[in-house]
Amino acid sequence: MSQITFEQLETLTREQLPFAKPYNFIVEYLGDREARVRLPANGAFLRPGGTISGPAMMALADYAMYAAVLASIGPVELAVTTNLNINFLQKPAPGDLIADARLIKLGKRLAVGDVPIHTIEDPTMVAHVTATYSIPPHR
Amino acid sequence: MSQITFEQLETLTREQLPFAKPYNFIVEYLGDREARVRLPANGAFLRPGGTISGPAMMALADYAMYAAVLASIGPVELAVTTNLNINFLQKPAPGDLIADARLIKLGKRLAVGDVPIHTIEDPTMVAHVTATYSIPPHR
Amino acid sequence: MSQITFEQLETLTREQLPFAKPYNFIVEYLGDREARVRLPANGAFLRPGGTISGPAMMALADYAMYAAVLASIGPVELAVTTNLNINFLQKPAPGDLIADARLIKLGKRLAVGDVPIHTIEDPTMVAHVTATYSIPPHR
Amino acid sequence: MSQITFEQLETLTREQLPFAKPYNFIVEYLGDREARVRLPANGAFLRPGGTISGPAMMALADYAMYAAVLASIGPVELAVTTNLNINFLQKPAPGDLIADARLIKLGKRLAVGDVPIHTIEDPTMVAHVTATYSIPPHR
Repeated sequence: MSQITFEQLETLTREQLPFAKPYNFIVEYLGDREARVRLPANGAFLRPGGTISGPAMMALADYAMYAAVLASIGPVELAVTTNLNINFLQKPAPGDLIADARLIKLGKRLAVGDVPIHTIEDPTMVAHVTATYSIPPHR
Repeated sequence: MSQITFEQLETLTREQLPFAKPYNFIVEYLGDREARVRLPANGAFLRPGGTISGPAMMALADYAMYAAVLASIGPVELAVTTNLNINFLQKPAPGDLIADARLIKLGKRLAVGDVPIHTIEDPTMVAHVTATYSIPPHR
Repeated sequence: MSQITFEQLETLTREQLPFAKPYNFIVEYLGDREARVRLPANGAFLRPGGTISGPAMMALADYAMYAAVLASIGPVELAVTTNLNINFLQKPAPGDLIADARLIKLGKRLAVGDVPIHTIEDPTMVAHVTATYSIPPHR
Repeated sequence: MSQITFEQLETLTREQLPFAKPYNFIVEYLGDREARVRLPANGAFLRPGGTISGPAMMALADYAMYAAVLASIGPVELAVTTNLNINFLQKPAPGDLIADARLIKLGKRLAVGDVPIHTIEDPTMVAHVTATYSIPPHR
């Protein structure tokens, strides 16, 4: 069960992560140690009909990890990415992208997750991310 | 000596990397196996006065690598990132960021570089990236 | 279906990867785009009863990737690792380790895989690797 | 100035990192936030005259980071690697390898370093590592 509601996540995102706004991320699922986030193809500064850029995929994976961490530990304000590793596998066809973040470690100080990304039309992985979040002490 | 001019890089960026536009990247230096790129703090969707987001730093490093690869092999259209690993070290103070991409390998098929990032005011590294580009055959 | 037999892999390993010998890796499964390899706890230079070292886990994951690549493309002699990223998640309990390599990309020039590692007794992931292999041209 | 002596590091290595023994690592330098470690070509299970294996380079970089962390914070027993990313750049010529670990972040909880590796004969980088160590609390 998620430790955070969609509304809480939306509020935190607006207050803490203003850079996320132009991507128009849609949180589709929040669960224990996992989250699914969609990047709409027609978001700001992505060309409609064009392929989705590498930096947009990194932002998507990073945000999906953020959602999965908060879904697991509740609305902590200071969780920050410390490491992100991405492999670009295929050029995605135009369309929405889906990132499925899943925590493979949830410790007191660090959370680690892997995040496959695919297009809404095709389950073939187009990019794969692993990322580490640092969790603030005394929570 | 750079194998590409600032004008050629600007043209390729506009045609091939439209997602780079809102960042307003400024290419400050192009040399053999290296490039310096600046991310102005007041670019689109970065809050003036606010800290610079992780995804913006990833985009900056990726673009600096792109510039360093083209500076080394000339205006090849299809060089693409295959892997990017970033460590976030310090929260940067508000202000412009500088990325210094340096190729540590330039092979026929792969180029690998490391990219320290720091603020214009302070040489302390705020993030460190290593990235791999795939170079098209038959160039 | 694997493009290489256990015997072919054993011969290539002996001839091409002599450093693998002291680990006494046991290849448990070879399939299309995947391989399972076991690292026995009592292998050379691992203390019986002691925990398994980080470098041994990196060697295990690297070898499992090698097996998965050859299982997919046949007995190519020059496939080499170009990038390996490992997250250490938990200190493994003493005992044999299992690495399950699965290719998430198999291109003409690059293969990328992810490799969860767990102990034989407990399915909890103790380490997670992503790795890239370069595949020689003209195969 | 190093916060640990060569003798203290040798004792800790023998007691905490028994897997390091067959490599015969030679610590050549310990300083504030840096360490230089040599991997002799004729160490156990490396073939004299043969090229040095990927796993041996990962072990070398990991150990050099360990030395640099202890040189910076003193003889802490539980510092552990949480992430290691390696790019293999060139096949090294036979001979001793040198790893120069340098910390690019030294926080209370995490230390991050980069570690270029080259052969004793040739300053060209043959591999590049970035690694993160977790530092125990209450030190």
